[in-house]
Amino acid sequence: MSEPAQWEIEKGVPIVQPAHLLHDVPLPTAAIFEAPLAYNLAWMQRFADAHGAKLAPHGKTTMAPALFKRQIEAGAWGITLATAVQSVAAHAHGIARVLMANQLVGRPNMTLVADAIERGLEYYCVVDDVDNVRDLGGYFAERGLTLNVLIELGIDGGRCGCRNVEQVEMLVAAIREEPALALAGIEGYEGMIAGSNEVAAVRAYGERLVETVRTLHASGVLQRETPIVTASGSKWFDLIAEAFDKAELREHYTPVLRPGCYVVHDHKLYAGAMSDVKARHPRLEGELQPALEVFAHVQSLPEPGLAIVALGKRDIGHEPDLPLPLRRYPRSAERSVSVDVSGWRTTHIMDQHTFLAIPHNADIAVGDVLAFGTSHPCLTFDKWRRMLCVDETLEVTEVITTHF
Amino acid sequence: MSEPAQWEIEKGVPIVQPAHLLHDVPLPTAAIFEAPLAYNLAWMQRFADAHGAKLAPHGKTTMAPALFKRQIEAGAWGITLATAVQSVAAHAHGIARVLMANQLVGRPNMTLVADAIERGLEYYCVVDDVDNVRDLGGYFAERGLTLNVLIELGIDGGRCGCRNVEQVEMLVAAIREEPALALAGIEGYEGMIAGSNEVAAVRAYGERLVETVRTLHASGVLQRETPIVTASGSKWFDLIAEAFDKAELREHYTPVLRPGCYVVHDHKLYAGAMSDVKARHPRLEGELQPALEVFAHVQSLPEPGLAIVALGKRDIGHEPDLPLPLRRYPRSAERSVSVDVSGWRTTHIMDQHTFLAIPHNADIAVGDVLAFGTSHPCLTFDKWRRMLCVDETLEVTEVITTHF
Repeated sequence: MSEPAQWEIEKGVPIVQPAHLLHDVPLPTAAIFEAPLAYNLAWMQRFADAHGAKLAPHGKTTMAPALFKRQIEAGAWGITLATAVQSVAAHAHGIARVLMANQLVGRPNMTLVADAIERGLEYYCVVDDVDNVRDLGGYFAERGLTLNVLIELGIDGGRCGCRNVEQVEMLVAAIREEPALALAGIEGYEGMIAGSNEVAAVRAYGERLVETVRTLHASGVLQRETPIVTASGSKWFDLIAEAFDKAELREHYTPVLRPGCYVVHDHKLYAGAMSDVKARHPRLEGELQPALEVFAHVQSLPEPGLAIVALGKRDIGHEPDLPLPLRRYPRSAERSVSVDVSGWRTTHIMDQHTFLAIPHNADIAVGDVLAFGTSHPCLTFDKWRRMLCVDETLEVTEVITTHF
Repeated sequence: MSEPAQWEIEKGVPIVQPAHLLHDVPLPTAAIFEAPLAYNLAWMQRFADAHGAKLAPHGKTTMAPALFKRQIEAGAWGITLATAVQSVAAHAHGIARVLMANQLVGRPNMTLVADAIERGLEYYCVVDDVDNVRDLGGYFAERGLTLNVLIELGIDGGRCGCRNVEQVEMLVAAIREEPALALAGIEGYEGMIAGSNEVAAVRAYGERLVETVRTLHASGVLQRETPIVTASGSKWFDLIAEAFDKAELREHYTPVLRPGCYVVHDHKLYAGAMSDVKARHPRLEGELQPALEVFAHVQSLPEPGLAIVALGKRDIGHEPDLPLPLRRYPRSAERSVSVDVSGWRTTHIMDQHTFLAIPHNADIAVGDVLAFGTSHPCLTFDKWRRMLCVDETLEVTEVITTHF
């Protein structure tokens, strides 16, 4: 009874092809617009190139191999992932170099990674714990493999990573006792930094990363010819790039930036972060563009001023801000003729419903389609097993899979 | 490049079988315990039977056909779903009768449902909008099919549904003009009711549903021999059952309850709702038991008093309450020997990390496994494409698929 039948359908997938989003797709559906996607891929690669840094975009944002492929083709050095399963999934879909920005913990996870390394994956993970170093050293020695590790440098009150020089030195000593481990550099994550001096604090953290990798390199403990120094989420990538932008690093190290959200950007949280980047770099050309939207039907109009949309937490991220209504496609209109919805406002979201406050005299009907933007794209991607790439007329150009 | 290779793995799935959760599964993983699952299935069916009601559990909670199958085998009348795609997915996996508790909107969604009806699906959806009635009437006439509809009765300030008798009468008149539509009864959802008089308000709403279906039945407009009257989420199912518990309804109608979360229950939100049910019915035997947990590794111990767990918003629901640490399985211990973690507290969750406040002298190591409970199970199910059923020793009994 639980075997799928041949007529099974996945949500958001066209029922005929070629397909138009408004006419051939059971809504809701998540759409990625080709033009801003291509623009963002090129923009961020150009930004990294201009600072002499490599790009290893955080793949956990999308977990979409088709987008990883576009990132690699645009010039990315590798893909960053968060877990062993994500790393192996990326490799299974053709990604040759993975930076896992977490400790590799637990024997089944180590087994997955070791198997992938045997199949040719170039893999780096981070370490911040002496017990973990011993576990990894023992396991990979047993397998007859070398594991590349980066020491994670953290901040007080932050997430993972060594808080001080003494912890780094203890880890270096522990790694040196494990012949199966190769210390390849330093990793950090500045995204936890917040507060009134956050820009200065991120700059200082970037400098600390650079100083730490220099010190380790000088002491001869790094086992990679061009040691890796890497950091950056999607908000402060420009400040980390500045810290890495040194001739010495470009020539003798591998500085790696890891923004993830840039690939589709967003309509609020990272839109704001982009404005900050532009303010810090007035001569920077162009800027990231929002490429991800979710389309859904007006489902019920039960009271004046209230529209219920067939869109819920199962379909779109709702943090830190509720979904943002962008445009309305009247049910009776020609293909992709949209109208403005300024002043319409999302007030509440449930598993399968979104509540919109609309003017009492709003022109709206059950069956109209609304396009929504997001604030932070990550938690929209993991609602979809398949997403649609579309052109500006809403014709579907590609159906891509995600692998969360 | 984006074609999956044969070594692809999905998160939370054993890498050998037979499998033990702590030794053969890349964590994190979501687990459903067999004993409380079986208990809950029997408990809720017995509860519905005792009130002369049918059970059509809300399937959007789990979207797991293997669990739908167990619900049907326990005696459920059908499965409730929220969308056209969910309905068709359930039918593709063997569910013969589906109650879709939303309006069916948009031609591609209508096409999916009509195709499934042609393949034998017994399907009911709700209506609350005259335009939608005309759309449905036109589309299903064109297809030469009959569509069963239930009028949705809403509440002022609530979600979907008719607010008053006049709206119901307008809908009845509109449905009578569409020969392809069969008006089969009344549907409602009391889960939006809140406030100081909520229990009385839910009781009054239950009575209003019953009165409305009686009035429509008496006027001869219902086209089903035993008209359907249905409501209930997972919180107030006992109050709706009371409203439906009448000899007349049992004999001449089809009263249907639709709780969803009961199947795995939870550790906080619905645990509290269960206490309220027990307080209202002191002689009720037994109570629902939490069956769903998520297991994850301690990932980093960067500062005294802080543990970072390899578990994030991608793995577990975090609303209305953050994940609840239940037990610790020390990395060095024998199989499934767990220790208490009372006093440990989740303080923050990110996409891939959970922050735990722990005592400064806590016995904990990177690589220990923690089991977490949830507050509201729905938004944990949709993080997983495969989940593990386990026995009390954590041996895996079945790997089930979800179809979100």
